[in-house]
Amino acid sequence: MNFRSDNVTGVAPEILDALAAANREATATPYGGDAWTARVEARFDDLFERKVAVFPVATGSAANVLGLTMLTPPYGAIYCHVDSHIAVDECGAPEFYTGGAKLVDLPGANGKLEAGHLDAVIGAAAAGDVHHVQPAAISLTQSTEAGTVYTLDEVAAIAEVARRHDLAVQMDGARFANAVVALDRAPAELTWKAGVDVLSFGATKNGAMAAEAVVFFDPARAEGFGFRRKRGGHLVSKMRFLSAQLEAYLTDDLWLRNARHANAMAARLAAGLETVPGLRFRYPVEANELFVEVPGAVAAGLEADGFLIYRWQDGPDPLLRLVTAFSTAAADVDRFIASATRHAR
Amino acid sequence: MNFRSDNVTGVAPEILDALAAANREATATPYGGDAWTARVEARFDDLFERKVAVFPVATGSAANVLGLTMLTPPYGAIYCHVDSHIAVDECGAPEFYTGGAKLVDLPGANGKLEAGHLDAVIGAAAAGDVHHVQPAAISLTQSTEAGTVYTLDEVAAIAEVARRHDLAVQMDGARFANAVVALDRAPAELTWKAGVDVLSFGATKNGAMAAEAVVFFDPARAEGFGFRRKRGGHLVSKMRFLSAQLEAYLTDDLWLRNARHANAMAARLAAGLETVPGLRFRYPVEANELFVEVPGAVAAGLEADGFLIYRWQDGPDPLLRLVTAFSTAAADVDRFIASATRHAR
Amino acid sequence: MNFRSDNVTGVAPEILDALAAANREATATPYGGDAWTARVEARFDDLFERKVAVFPVATGSAANVLGLTMLTPPYGAIYCHVDSHIAVDECGAPEFYTGGAKLVDLPGANGKLEAGHLDAVIGAAAAGDVHHVQPAAISLTQSTEAGTVYTLDEVAAIAEVARRHDLAVQMDGARFANAVVALDRAPAELTWKAGVDVLSFGATKNGAMAAEAVVFFDPARAEGFGFRRKRGGHLVSKMRFLSAQLEAYLTDDLWLRNARHANAMAARLAAGLETVPGLRFRYPVEANELFVEVPGAVAAGLEADGFLIYRWQDGPDPLLRLVTAFSTAAADVDRFIASATRHAR
Amino acid sequence: MNFRSDNVTGVAPEILDALAAANREATATPYGGDAWTARVEARFDDLFERKVAVFPVATGSAANVLGLTMLTPPYGAIYCHVDSHIAVDECGAPEFYTGGAKLVDLPGANGKLEAGHLDAVIGAAAAGDVHHVQPAAISLTQSTEAGTVYTLDEVAAIAEVARRHDLAVQMDGARFANAVVALDRAPAELTWKAGVDVLSFGATKNGAMAAEAVVFFDPARAEGFGFRRKRGGHLVSKMRFLSAQLEAYLTDDLWLRNARHANAMAARLAAGLETVPGLRFRYPVEANELFVEVPGAVAAGLEADGFLIYRWQDGPDPLLRLVTAFSTAAADVDRFIASATRHAR
Repeated sequence: MNFRSDNVTGVAPEILDALAAANREATATPYGGDAWTARVEARFDDLFERKVAVFPVATGSAANVLGLTMLTPPYGAIYCHVDSHIAVDECGAPEFYTGGAKLVDLPGANGKLEAGHLDAVIGAAAAGDVHHVQPAAISLTQSTEAGTVYTLDEVAAIAEVARRHDLAVQMDGARFANAVVALDRAPAELTWKAGVDVLSFGATKNGAMAAEAVVFFDPARAEGFGFRRKRGGHLVSKMRFLSAQLEAYLTDDLWLRNARHANAMAARLAAGLETVPGLRFRYPVEANELFVEVPGAVAAGLEADGFLIYRWQDGPDPLLRLVTAFSTAAADVDRFIASATRHAR
Repeated sequence: MNFRSDNVTGVAPEILDALAAANREATATPYGGDAWTARVEARFDDLFERKVAVFPVATGSAANVLGLTMLTPPYGAIYCHVDSHIAVDECGAPEFYTGGAKLVDLPGANGKLEAGHLDAVIGAAAAGDVHHVQPAAISLTQSTEAGTVYTLDEVAAIAEVARRHDLAVQMDGARFANAVVALDRAPAELTWKAGVDVLSFGATKNGAMAAEAVVFFDPARAEGFGFRRKRGGHLVSKMRFLSAQLEAYLTDDLWLRNARHANAMAARLAAGLETVPGLRFRYPVEANELFVEVPGAVAAGLEADGFLIYRWQDGPDPLLRLVTAFSTAAADVDRFIASATRHAR
Repeated sequence: MNFRSDNVTGVAPEILDALAAANREATATPYGGDAWTARVEARFDDLFERKVAVFPVATGSAANVLGLTMLTPPYGAIYCHVDSHIAVDECGAPEFYTGGAKLVDLPGANGKLEAGHLDAVIGAAAAGDVHHVQPAAISLTQSTEAGTVYTLDEVAAIAEVARRHDLAVQMDGARFANAVVALDRAPAELTWKAGVDVLSFGATKNGAMAAEAVVFFDPARAEGFGFRRKRGGHLVSKMRFLSAQLEAYLTDDLWLRNARHANAMAARLAAGLETVPGLRFRYPVEANELFVEVPGAVAAGLEADGFLIYRWQDGPDPLLRLVTAFSTAAADVDRFIASATRHAR
Repeated sequence: MNFRSDNVTGVAPEILDALAAANREATATPYGGDAWTARVEARFDDLFERKVAVFPVATGSAANVLGLTMLTPPYGAIYCHVDSHIAVDECGAPEFYTGGAKLVDLPGANGKLEAGHLDAVIGAAAAGDVHHVQPAAISLTQSTEAGTVYTLDEVAAIAEVARRHDLAVQMDGARFANAVVALDRAPAELTWKAGVDVLSFGATKNGAMAAEAVVFFDPARAEGFGFRRKRGGHLVSKMRFLSAQLEAYLTDDLWLRNARHANAMAARLAAGLETVPGLRFRYPVEANELFVEVPGAVAAGLEADGFLIYRWQDGPDPLLRLVTAFSTAAADVDRFIASATRHAR
């Protein structure tokens, strides 16, 4: 009963089957010249209701930093939330890949950047002054690291700020599916129609083995990306097995079904925990993550009962991060609530 | 009937089974804190008869460049064969990862560096002179890009040159298994006992889906590697599926059995083609690659018969690269020989 | 009457004379193999009361970033003040030179980092966790960008934090002379005896044409620096003219005399402006910079009177930065005070 | 009597005077916002008979690598002569600044690249193939490291190859003046009219203290250069002293007069040495450098007589590099010839 993260999960059966199916073909052209990759490319065009340029990679780190590399010169500034993955959890990968661009990390309630604040900060940056890094891109995380979801209006407002200052917009969509499900809107609306230029389309946390895709909504913007992926060491040779994961992920709405389940489990967990006295939610629960401050005894009790939880911030009343996934069992959620309730007494 | 490369192949059944088996565990600690990875680490200790530091990654490019990064300062020189993968086929990945180290590419018969030549070149490099990049490492490919194999003595002689000049030795072992089988010596003898410091231990071309390992024979030398892998975007989150591939690869000598088959198919193909008039082998066939100059009509005939071949150098008498693999069928080899024979008349 | 910065100044006569004198020798070994450089090296040993490794460069940017490069891996974190030059005014040079290290910029009263805060921040950084950049160095600016000066105890306390967490300490001494004069302590006490590892020893702002020196108090720490200076393009060929500037700068305490004058002019200016109604000093005036909030009419009046001032922050009551230098005339200071007084009425 | 290099020289009196004159102005706007820099910019427009973008820097290394950075992506290939400064003498600076672009060094008689060879090599490069670095620029050295000079036709032919393959052309003009004088053609003809995109316009070796200029013939191509210069640490604060050198250098044809003298001294030395038995010139003497193979006894004798010479390649018959400069005395040249003659007996 592991609620630590959605990357503790295994592979969705449909995706594992797709790998086996892809293996039935004796040989395939490597490096993406295969039929699976061609089909995945067409799928993404359909999904986003336009011709896009899409590049599968094996990790979310790679998707984010390779995408950002296309949006900033080495002397650029990338504006992001102070808790964003690129700012905190990539060991400097964005700086490495971009040749030294600067992440300007900004605060923001509920894990979200705020358009007005961005506008002020970027407006105050000395555009054109050689002494300072130059505003180049804004990076949003959707759904956020706080388990919240930018509304369509919020995304559009931020993209409008970007446009005003001639910046590009990248979206870290490691949990994009959870946001799509939460907002119940078309992927196109949530991205390019709202002003997003590049999306890291995550699949790993939501059922794939190791598969993400970098999506450029304007294919012209992707010029040279292939070289950067290759020299990052991220061009997988037996690409069919990466593309096959993505293909299965998009087939029969698996990605949405998986995310719907994960979000539903999070809602069920939230609903249950809300009835437990002494617990305080740090953020609204809008996707598949919960941040709950609990009495130390509750945390210890849950652990003693065998639940694996992430003490996001430790202390007398630790802040727990609880993550649900496509594979989370409702019974486990209920057991978790029962355990928390018992220890809260 | 694809003889273009060993990365056109699929996944060995034992490895696909291992992935399915790994998926039976509902959850696992991500980023390598799982049981599969722990077991793989122990396996590599056994395999190399000493405590090693081993890091799974998904691509051979990543294995090579991350390994090299530990051996050279940004102002270092890495000596390699002019046809080596790092010099030719990585789109500048070594330069990117090392922060700008210089690959000094040297000629050498049969795809091999030659110790005496290396000694002269490195001796003539201006060690200590700030105007010039500083000798830092030698990179060997085993088996080579020419389908040949360094003998134990050749490796040792090169490592001795390295030691004399205080350089490190990296081995690109994308096809290491083929060399081990060809030489019929223990992996330890072929590597650290001969003076190799870091090995890119390849599995993908020989039956894995996407799995390689960077092996440091002196674990102290690996200090900081984890950070570099992470910021390269090469720390896979659901690591168990990478480690499970490597575990299966090493189980019951699958890696050696697969390589033995590939080499045997290459030998069979070579023996057959040697009887065909008008064909000229460019290099001795010692592992699983053949380089054969054939009359244009033969190349065209083979293609017309449905064989996928790699015209390595085009021309009236094109140079073909033919690669066999763990999954190459003897019947296909025989058909290839028959086709070549027919068209050579 | 330019109070905008100390780099609007020309060259101290003694230093210009030294350039002419250095030119009397027809030829000299380039790249630092000359007699001037040898003498300067000895001078620095004397100045700092120990054997040091010293490297002249032409710009303060180069001094800072090259020095920092020796203290951090590419995946390191450098802790610095939010207003520090490396954080704000180098267009990403530190990130470029270090290969992507992260500047963690911290607030702090009066332009200074605070030891306790540093300790907390560094203690909370996840040392050893591959997901995060690793604490590597602390950078202090002495005197600070706020025109204040770290006391000896403050430097020592910060260095103690560094030592506790195994970090190195760099000091940006673009205005080091002003601090030495302000504190009236030996350079050795202010640096290595207090725990500083590397110093950017500035001369340009205090009378040189273009000359700074990177000083490593432990020469072993400088290993490889020469290569980094060269590949940064910062190894000047006719080095005697760089070293001659530094030699003259240190001769007969020119550097201290110049700084003493600059500080005295700042004190005189501060004393005068303190009597002007409606002016508010942002920071204590301890070196050669003043930050004063003035009514808009005063700022406009000063400008109308021909004074060149730096509107550090604009607004109805702009914040002015006023900088004095070795060449500032007392009469100009008095005129400035008179003008401000007149316009403040 | 130092014939080792032209950077052993001091500063031309006119340039030293200009520095003193520039110092008479009490203050000046830093970082290039000064009158000297504005005048220099206008001068370069005149000199090259078109609007150019010009950026002063202090070293030739900086000029070259910053210029190249504008012409290549990190995954680009720069074609250069195997003996070029960027390939051999910059300790990897080009790789560092470009983020890892690859220098492809090519042989060529008399230190020159050959258009036909370039065409073949670039034509064989796999443009568009993600596995390989992409042809981006050609770098010429004029006059060459061999002391020869590309003819106008040779430059134009190489530029034509560049244009055909969509590459840019950079010219390392550390000794550009010597080539202009040797060819007796307008600077415009030798550069942009022949197809050169960016020029490192050298002054240091020919009389300046430390001054070079990066010249973009199409100012649009320079977009972003200012940021790159700054983050390289190459934006000098008291820029007037850099620009003043360049202004004096261009005034009254000082640069041409100096180069004419240097070339004349080289011709005089060559004429004298041609009469000495046993000496063999490696390359034609066309600018201010001579490469002469001499009997060991002659080399030793010259050294014993107090001549400082550069043993470019040592051996029983060492290859000497002899360089003349703006300050070389004819009497010293004659003494050198006499000494060589005496020892050759």
